[in-house]
Amino acid sequence: MRISELSAASGVPIPTIKYYLREGLLPAGEQTSATRARYGEEHVRRLRLIRALLEVGRLSIAAIGKVMAAVDNEDLDLHRVLGTAQYALAPAVEPQASGEEWARARTEADTMITDLGWRIDPGAPARDELAQAILTLARLGMPADGEALRPYADAALRLVTEHEIGNIPLDGPREAAVEAMVLGTVVHGRVLDVMRRLAHESVSARVFGA
Amino acid sequence: MRISELSAASGVPIPTIKYYLREGLLPAGEQTSATRARYGEEHVRRLRLIRALLEVGRLSIAAIGKVMAAVDNEDLDLHRVLGTAQYALAPAVEPQASGEEWARARTEADTMITDLGWRIDPGAPARDELAQAILTLARLGMPADGEALRPYADAALRLVTEHEIGNIPLDGPREAAVEAMVLGTVVHGRVLDVMRRLAHESVSARVFGA
Repeated sequence: MRISELSAASGVPIPTIKYYLREGLLPAGEQTSATRARYGEEHVRRLRLIRALLEVGRLSIAAIGKVMAAVDNEDLDLHRVLGTAQYALAPAVEPQASGEEWARARTEADTMITDLGWRIDPGAPARDELAQAILTLARLGMPADGEALRPYADAALRLVTEHEIGNIPLDGPREAAVEAMVLGTVVHGRVLDVMRRLAHESVSARVFGA
Repeated sequence: MRISELSAASGVPIPTIKYYLREGLLPAGEQTSATRARYGEEHVRRLRLIRALLEVGRLSIAAIGKVMAAVDNEDLDLHRVLGTAQYALAPAVEPQASGEEWARARTEADTMITDLGWRIDPGAPARDELAQAILTLARLGMPADGEALRPYADAALRLVTEHEIGNIPLDGPREAAVEAMVLGTVVHGRVLDVMRRLAHESVSARVFGA
């Protein structure tokens, strides 16, 4: 299809498609003349993924570029590709503590992950996030050890294992797997957040209400 | 104590304390002369709560004003006071749908809450948030009915009932209850979020890894 048809099929305006081509997010089409190129279903799929990462994942164009490079890198297995997208979704953590205090929280986070028996890359940004949460809890005088956080780990693992990982299509293009993973992570995170807020209100009504 | 001592006891600078007094977030001290006032432990406690709402809850000064008005209103029971703080924490929802589509999602959210048997105010903002999440899931072609979201509701209710509501002190000043509720909601939300991200990585390593 021509660029105008690609635009119609994907709902993405032509200038935006050209911008993605220039930024390398979208692979070039097959050149059919000096000024024309032909695009295929893989371009429609790729545009769908870019929109999902932008609109639902709120990723920057630079972060999307990294995810696309991973999708295109045949040396990476699907787990690595999904991991690249997952890491791009994680908020950056600025350690809010002195070197020593931070190092202690990081060690505690690492021990917690080891005790859970989870397979987490040593460089995973979520290790820093967990350390930050442990620090905040401890500063507020709230329980922050492995025992206190275990119910949250168990609930998260159950939801991911029983309800989320199954939504990721294994056969088919990698774009579809990355899209399903990003959408599932973000939207189910929002669902869980609102359910917690509702549960707080309902339990509070029973316990503290008139 | 004098304002300088209140500042030392709370760690809040004097100009900031004066600002909170002007905005009505902090009740006036007992006037001891034309230019001096005496402050008590209740002012230290109140400053602690303001900082928690600002720094951890990321509430605006206007939103904190509403929470403080509820804390001070003796006609409200503790559940109403906690609800005011809870609602202030909720992100504002801008319905991203036509009137009819939005009304359908809201009805679905309301039905879901009724089916759960939860006690939720008809005007709770989390009802709109749930409708928005249902809409997003449906648009992405993901399951969005009561059955699909039930595991999230169950997990949230279990965590709140077994691990969060017990942290809210019932006896003692209302400020302490509001502070514990806000901190618990926000920080445990972050814990759950990072645990889900870690669980995703670990499950992905087992299922998709080399």
